Amino acid sequence: MVKVGIVGGTGYTGVELLRILVLHPEVDLRVITSRSEAGTPVADLFPNLRGRVDLGFTAPDMSQLAECDLIFFATPNGTAMQMVPELLDSGVKVVDLAADFRLNDPVVWSQWYGMPHACPELLDEAVYGLPEINRDAVAKARLVANPGCYPTAVTLGFMPLINNGLLDIGHLIADTKSGVSGAGRKAAVPSLMGECGESFKAYAVPGHRHLPEISQTLSQMAGQKVGLTFVPHLVPMIRGIHATLYGRINIDSDLQELFEKQYANEPFVDVLPAGNHPETRSVRGVNTCRIAIHRPQNSDTVVVLSVIDNLVKGAAGQAVQNMNLMFGLDECLGLDSVALLP
Amino acid sequence: MVKVGIVGGTGYTGVELLRILVLHPEVDLRVITSRSEAGTPVADLFPNLRGRVDLGFTAPDMSQLAECDLIFFATPNGTAMQMVPELLDSGVKVVDLAADFRLNDPVVWSQWYGMPHACPELLDEAVYGLPEINRDAVAKARLVANPGCYPTAVTLGFMPLINNGLLDIGHLIADTKSGVSGAGRKAAVPSLMGECGESFKAYAVPGHRHLPEISQTLSQMAGQKVGLTFVPHLVPMIRGIHATLYGRINIDSDLQELFEKQYANEPFVDVLPAGNHPETRSVRGVNTCRIAIHRPQNSDTVVVLSVIDNLVKGAAGQAVQNMNLMFGLDECLGLDSVALLP
Amino acid sequence: MVKVGIVGGTGYTGVELLRILVLHPEVDLRVITSRSEAGTPVADLFPNLRGRVDLGFTAPDMSQLAECDLIFFATPNGTAMQMVPELLDSGVKVVDLAADFRLNDPVVWSQWYGMPHACPELLDEAVYGLPEINRDAVAKARLVANPGCYPTAVTLGFMPLINNGLLDIGHLIADTKSGVSGAGRKAAVPSLMGECGESFKAYAVPGHRHLPEISQTLSQMAGQKVGLTFVPHLVPMIRGIHATLYGRINIDSDLQELFEKQYANEPFVDVLPAGNHPETRSVRGVNTCRIAIHRPQNSDTVVVLSVIDNLVKGAAGQAVQNMNLMFGLDECLGLDSVALLP
Amino acid sequence: MVKVGIVGGTGYTGVELLRILVLHPEVDLRVITSRSEAGTPVADLFPNLRGRVDLGFTAPDMSQLAECDLIFFATPNGTAMQMVPELLDSGVKVVDLAADFRLNDPVVWSQWYGMPHACPELLDEAVYGLPEINRDAVAKARLVANPGCYPTAVTLGFMPLINNGLLDIGHLIADTKSGVSGAGRKAAVPSLMGECGESFKAYAVPGHRHLPEISQTLSQMAGQKVGLTFVPHLVPMIRGIHATLYGRINIDSDLQELFEKQYANEPFVDVLPAGNHPETRSVRGVNTCRIAIHRPQNSDTVVVLSVIDNLVKGAAGQAVQNMNLMFGLDECLGLDSVALLP
Repeated sequence: MVKVGIVGGTGYTGVELLRILVLHPEVDLRVITSRSEAGTPVADLFPNLRGRVDLGFTAPDMSQLAECDLIFFATPNGTAMQMVPELLDSGVKVVDLAADFRLNDPVVWSQWYGMPHACPELLDEAVYGLPEINRDAVAKARLVANPGCYPTAVTLGFMPLINNGLLDIGHLIADTKSGVSGAGRKAAVPSLMGECGESFKAYAVPGHRHLPEISQTLSQMAGQKVGLTFVPHLVPMIRGIHATLYGRINIDSDLQELFEKQYANEPFVDVLPAGNHPETRSVRGVNTCRIAIHRPQNSDTVVVLSVIDNLVKGAAGQAVQNMNLMFGLDECLGLDSVALLP
Repeated sequence: MVKVGIVGGTGYTGVELLRILVLHPEVDLRVITSRSEAGTPVADLFPNLRGRVDLGFTAPDMSQLAECDLIFFATPNGTAMQMVPELLDSGVKVVDLAADFRLNDPVVWSQWYGMPHACPELLDEAVYGLPEINRDAVAKARLVANPGCYPTAVTLGFMPLINNGLLDIGHLIADTKSGVSGAGRKAAVPSLMGECGESFKAYAVPGHRHLPEISQTLSQMAGQKVGLTFVPHLVPMIRGIHATLYGRINIDSDLQELFEKQYANEPFVDVLPAGNHPETRSVRGVNTCRIAIHRPQNSDTVVVLSVIDNLVKGAAGQAVQNMNLMFGLDECLGLDSVALLP
Repeated sequence: MVKVGIVGGTGYTGVELLRILVLHPEVDLRVITSRSEAGTPVADLFPNLRGRVDLGFTAPDMSQLAECDLIFFATPNGTAMQMVPELLDSGVKVVDLAADFRLNDPVVWSQWYGMPHACPELLDEAVYGLPEINRDAVAKARLVANPGCYPTAVTLGFMPLINNGLLDIGHLIADTKSGVSGAGRKAAVPSLMGECGESFKAYAVPGHRHLPEISQTLSQMAGQKVGLTFVPHLVPMIRGIHATLYGRINIDSDLQELFEKQYANEPFVDVLPAGNHPETRSVRGVNTCRIAIHRPQNSDTVVVLSVIDNLVKGAAGQAVQNMNLMFGLDECLGLDSVALLP
Repeated sequence: MVKVGIVGGTGYTGVELLRILVLHPEVDLRVITSRSEAGTPVADLFPNLRGRVDLGFTAPDMSQLAECDLIFFATPNGTAMQMVPELLDSGVKVVDLAADFRLNDPVVWSQWYGMPHACPELLDEAVYGLPEINRDAVAKARLVANPGCYPTAVTLGFMPLINNGLLDIGHLIADTKSGVSGAGRKAAVPSLMGECGESFKAYAVPGHRHLPEISQTLSQMAGQKVGLTFVPHLVPMIRGIHATLYGRINIDSDLQELFEKQYANEPFVDVLPAGNHPETRSVRGVNTCRIAIHRPQNSDTVVVLSVIDNLVKGAAGQAVQNMNLMFGLDECLGLDSVALLP
């Protein structure tokens, strides 16, 4: 049994981690911290966990956390980096679901996140936790940076094309759409149902924090700097991300076969048969990324459709997948549920 | 392993049965029939089942069905009664998720369902599959009539009050609200998102088929005919039923304690602490009924709030609960998932 | 032209007032105040008003307000009562869309609103602005208390029955359902789409502030104190209220005819033909209340279905209707739009 | 007064035409046809029109239609072309809201619409009714082809860039998103709320009928054939289209100024200030197209965001705008309402 703690368990990522972990056969959940909710039973805040989680939220206590084998950080950006060095020193492994360890360059990180990095010396060690790219490194890691939701959907969608050098990588386009749970569970007018219900909009077109993250991964993949236009949109639904990816093909190839080969052995990537269109609901609540490839009207523009549940493969599910790898467990353990449809 | 077949697997009840059964450790799923979709792989219709269900839909074939231990009917009303006698004769057990065997009186049945009953002789034998009332009878049954969605929420909400003789049973009121999946997966203008989205209405106020079903159960419970006003409403959401129940109290009592005692050992009924209001999302995807009891302003009117997922405790989940009982399995087997929230 | 000012224009009631007033042919909109948004052009906050409203929000300034003929208060409870006496003294008329002047008894008011009343001496003068009850008094009023959203739907639904003495008024039940815009445009976790989307719940069952308001009106109507159980629910949609009303009939009568007669000359109350069920979307954006009457299974329980748009007939539209009356204009002026369906 | 008839008034385009026309001061609505609903009062089907429209649906009768000044066709594709020649011969003007007269080439038309064209000789005369391009021609036209919803949003978004020769027109991308009312009011499983609610997907990526329509208009604008990748998506909301347009800039220019100049005198196109993101709700129920221009990270890729209400500027509103032009009325008559927000 892996002794697990969660720091910052009151947001959507936190409750989703709990939903998965309470049914995980190899997890012993020891502590869930929240400064603001210290003393509140977890099940009072999240009634779906009544009868499943007896723990209450507690104020973060380093000595208690240090007794765990693994700590998940489900905190706002900038929190994990304050605590991770001490935890690692105590022999605790860490999966950070926030962005503190996702970018390799502390200067770029500071520029996008608006604060200096508290432990830049750990950025090299941190492994970017997309198992489809870094499975072996994750297995050996002490510190895993769990990828962002958009980056997961976009990277998995572009990967087979870039790995095979088929695209004009100077002009990639990622038109992405997210359900509102991506904005988190914090009181904010734009996330009110009266504001985002029955409406659709783009946001952060001038620059979104997931842009440098995606660019970094794709550039490493391509072996040179990619040019990416990244436009996120808000969808009036709760869960789900849909990435529609565009690139210009340089070299002709059987793209369907390419994708099927790339992901043949991946338990959590499902390439749909040619001609299909994945729906976000087909992955609601599960750790799967579903992908379809199109080349409309036989032009030189490829269109990749990639869907995930932003809270699962885009956050908590992928974090558990990483935990399984880090502790030598079956990668799929605790992640075998079926998407809730309808 | 229980060899299971499903007749009529293309609706929402069908896909929900599949979602639950593919993870059930004691079920061997043998056959799923659909005349209209014969030949189609199940996963083509329901992409959430890709990689989980290899079966295709087949036209119903009695000899094939007769090889199963249990058949679930997820068919329109009036279909099961045509096939059940022969299946029972072949030694197959049956859970009918439609209404064919819910009413004891074939005359009343015909009046509400608009056709003669094909096997009225089985109505006495059929057990009404609400385990919280009929657990022992279900365990011994060959034929279980799975309750309707509204009747499940309403009956569990009224039961402790009626069992204890506290209500003026001549004037019960059930104001109920259902998500749109309750109308099924059939092409019909009123179920279009353009029609039922962003709107709320009552329907079938003059008379709904669940009225005689609820009245029958409550009357049996009370030992005399109850008077019930039953008003269903359509909520612009996909899953969930919320029943708001009103009754006039005849005898004073600690209602909270009464409910907690009634359901103390029930694995799928959760009585909330005093003062709470259950949300339908707290049971999304799970087999739980959550109940709260109020007596606003200390008047003589009690208000019970009862929520279920109409497709789970209101249909497929309860059907699996009944199957577990009928085959001597742990009643909760395959039904331990956690509600998807948010 | 009526010179109009709005105090507190940044909420949903405020933007709805603006939407109606910019098209009103007899209104000269002079000032919109907001402390928090002072200096912001109105159209920056509400892009639907781009090109329609050139005003910016300003900090409230009594001398500026005193130059208006009418001030609408679209403020939180407790604000209007601080400013109304001075405005009335300056000869300005007032319609308060909040609750400050809705209850006659300052003791009851304080009990439900948690603060002492700042000008109890005005409570007698204030006219409850439900024109279907108080048309003449509104026309002569200096100070109108615009009714709450639930009270409007409930009162119009019960009125013909109580006016005619047909009900057991000791046991009225109002099971009401509201879209989320009823909670206003303020940052609060329970109003996030991730919290209230795809879910349904009752709230405030022990006691809601609209209970004493409805009870007061119905009691005045009945000539004696009524007993009312009032249960509000939250619907995952933006606009709309549906009230489902229950009462026990004492005296037999043609209820359909009774309602049609009561509302025959009312421009904003539409009694549906027998057998119908009103949908909230049929009044989206308009000042109409649609009502249907049922007596299911010929029992002695009557069921009234009453729908309004909470922001129009339940707030801003009714406020403009009151303004029209107060200034001798056609009652329907500026209120002739057609509901947006779908 | 313009005597107006509507052929095919039972769909969403039909009810939206009615909503606008009943308040239009220069319209005398004479006839609304529907074979399937002949005899039904319009207000029975669309309760928002109770008290506004006294007409009932009638079977189409050419002699009755010929007495009108203008006929709107709100019919499925392929219907208008059967009746238009005779109507034009009778001196009646026509606005077809379907696609029968949108493409100039009957061969291309047949290829995309799967039937031979019934009156190819009228294709040259038909004016494509996008007033921002063809205002003068519309004013003189007997026959107007009302543009599709996607084409309206996409064309208005690309126009200033193409008119000024700034784009690599061989590789345009239109990533478009529509609410479900775009699929019409016909019984079909994919449009059920249980199917399209709380989910997001692309559809028709290999080829959508609006592709040749957009390509034709943009190619005429560019003076040469454009290359366009067009990917439509379905949004879980009722109304609204959001087009996200991508193109590569060939020549540097002040794009914001360019757009503002292009649309300076257009009553129904609103260019947002730099840095903004239009929301579909800001045009709900109104005839406005709102546009924002971005050039993220100063790359050579321009991103245009363009929103309309698919049923108004994308259908019925634009049809009325065309009618106003055809009859020498103020172009904005009957189209001055304010978007319903929230």
